[in-house]
Amino acid sequence: MSAELSSWNTGAAKSTITDFVARVTLEGGPDFVRPAERIAVFDNDGTLWCEQPYQVQVFFLIDRVRELVANDPPLGEHQPFKALLEHDLPALHALGKKGLHELFAATHAGMSTEEFDVIATRWFGGARHPKFGRPFTRCIYQPQVELLEFLRASGFKTFIVSGGGIELMRAFAEDAYGIPRERVIGSSAKLHFELRNDRAVLMKQGELNSFDDRDVKPENIGLHIGRRPLLAFGNSDGDLAMMRYTLAGPGARLALLIHHDDAEREVAYDREFKLSPLVEALDKAGEYGITVVSMKRDWNAVFPES
Amino acid sequence: MSAELSSWNTGAAKSTITDFVARVTLEGGPDFVRPAERIAVFDNDGTLWCEQPYQVQVFFLIDRVRELVANDPPLGEHQPFKALLEHDLPALHALGKKGLHELFAATHAGMSTEEFDVIATRWFGGARHPKFGRPFTRCIYQPQVELLEFLRASGFKTFIVSGGGIELMRAFAEDAYGIPRERVIGSSAKLHFELRNDRAVLMKQGELNSFDDRDVKPENIGLHIGRRPLLAFGNSDGDLAMMRYTLAGPGARLALLIHHDDAEREVAYDREFKLSPLVEALDKAGEYGITVVSMKRDWNAVFPES
Repeated sequence: MSAELSSWNTGAAKSTITDFVARVTLEGGPDFVRPAERIAVFDNDGTLWCEQPYQVQVFFLIDRVRELVANDPPLGEHQPFKALLEHDLPALHALGKKGLHELFAATHAGMSTEEFDVIATRWFGGARHPKFGRPFTRCIYQPQVELLEFLRASGFKTFIVSGGGIELMRAFAEDAYGIPRERVIGSSAKLHFELRNDRAVLMKQGELNSFDDRDVKPENIGLHIGRRPLLAFGNSDGDLAMMRYTLAGPGARLALLIHHDDAEREVAYDREFKLSPLVEALDKAGEYGITVVSMKRDWNAVFPES
Repeated sequence: MSAELSSWNTGAAKSTITDFVARVTLEGGPDFVRPAERIAVFDNDGTLWCEQPYQVQVFFLIDRVRELVANDPPLGEHQPFKALLEHDLPALHALGKKGLHELFAATHAGMSTEEFDVIATRWFGGARHPKFGRPFTRCIYQPQVELLEFLRASGFKTFIVSGGGIELMRAFAEDAYGIPRERVIGSSAKLHFELRNDRAVLMKQGELNSFDDRDVKPENIGLHIGRRPLLAFGNSDGDLAMMRYTLAGPGARLALLIHHDDAEREVAYDREFKLSPLVEALDKAGEYGITVVSMKRDWNAVFPES
């Protein structure tokens, strides 16, 4: 089935993947794993789609604030909205966590989950990436879409485990990646059950439920999946705990790390990217047993054909 | 495919189920629902297995305390352990939530999720129900096992949404119900990612993460599944919010409620069962559009053949 990974160049990374899948799916073989235990977890930002110049969630947030201010202009004179709209990063930094929290509460809370889904779906329908000029939902990585399909065809269950907002991802992940809503794990706000005009809804609250990054990723895997993954794929130090949790299980395991080293087709970056740096996972990949995938060397395509 | 529901008697309850499934799966029909959205949620205690004289979780808790005290006899002289071992209910009640919390922390925390799984699996292998004399994992309801299979054969995804401990349920639900670990939602303690001798594990903490009952059930459905269910099945007021959340969605929906009215084959109870009373859901079933299933009338078998 490896022929399906047509956007992957022949080489060490591709054969590590296909050899691993062959081993764990070979019935009667020493590394066989029954399908129920074939759990594969993928980070999203920078692993399944582009996270440059900043995460898609931030583009969404800015557009949502613009919309709020268009409906209520005086809001644009107040912080943290003013700083965001003026791209005043020092002012935003100075507002700190409280400012960020206010931005999320204003744009992601006070509506039902289903109302948010309508807003997100509408936004995905119109918004475009400033550099690549294509919809964000087409800034996904073609080789990864093929890998997800290859894994599912090999009996794996594929999950997203991302720092991104769980409901923003659920609005596009099924169409884009073939990953249904219940297999998306992400950062989340608290939900509150309410009867609104006698109709039961879940209202999104301003209060954070879980910031799904670093150690919280394996903790959320424990809560949502309840099983140690067989395969983990990430691209930053935020994914390291999830990778080490995966590799520490018995039998054959695989952890992969994308290195964004392709300035020509995407963006070349790692340790200097403040929003999600890649330092320890890259420096210690060998020691920890993590396979590094070079975007430049291992992928013959980056995005799907437009 | 309704022939497979052989432990269900012909009658209104059975035909409500089979008619509903026929409608939502009829391609091109007015009520057709695509498979991705065919979500069915089941309470566990009293809905999928027996919860009398008290929930299986309590039997487990008592046996775990006995084991701890056997290894450390002086512990048995202290509260809340003394009251539990002596079945001293007034003393237990007097110890309140704090006592209950101490019991759970002592028996369900301070170990990795995988160590807990070994303890739970071993316990299920030996423990037996005091009245029915069979393993707890065989105190499941045969008609419900058939219904779960019937729904899955009809393209539904079946989930447990229960007040029971998420990890205790995961230790048996796959074998007993065909429900994999990632489709079990329940009450949970916080998990903490740790490197123990350089090996990544998730440690169960004493602190509660979620008590999955009443309004929290639909809230956890929002977090874990991210989609309004098409079908919900419960047996107490603790399931009412989840049922109303299910019924409030657009298109065809079904909510079912088991009434334990079979003193001969199981136990007849409803509003007087203090641990999980059935009052509002029964009184208002008609008003809310909930189908009541009578164990006595609608089931020709209760437990699987031994």
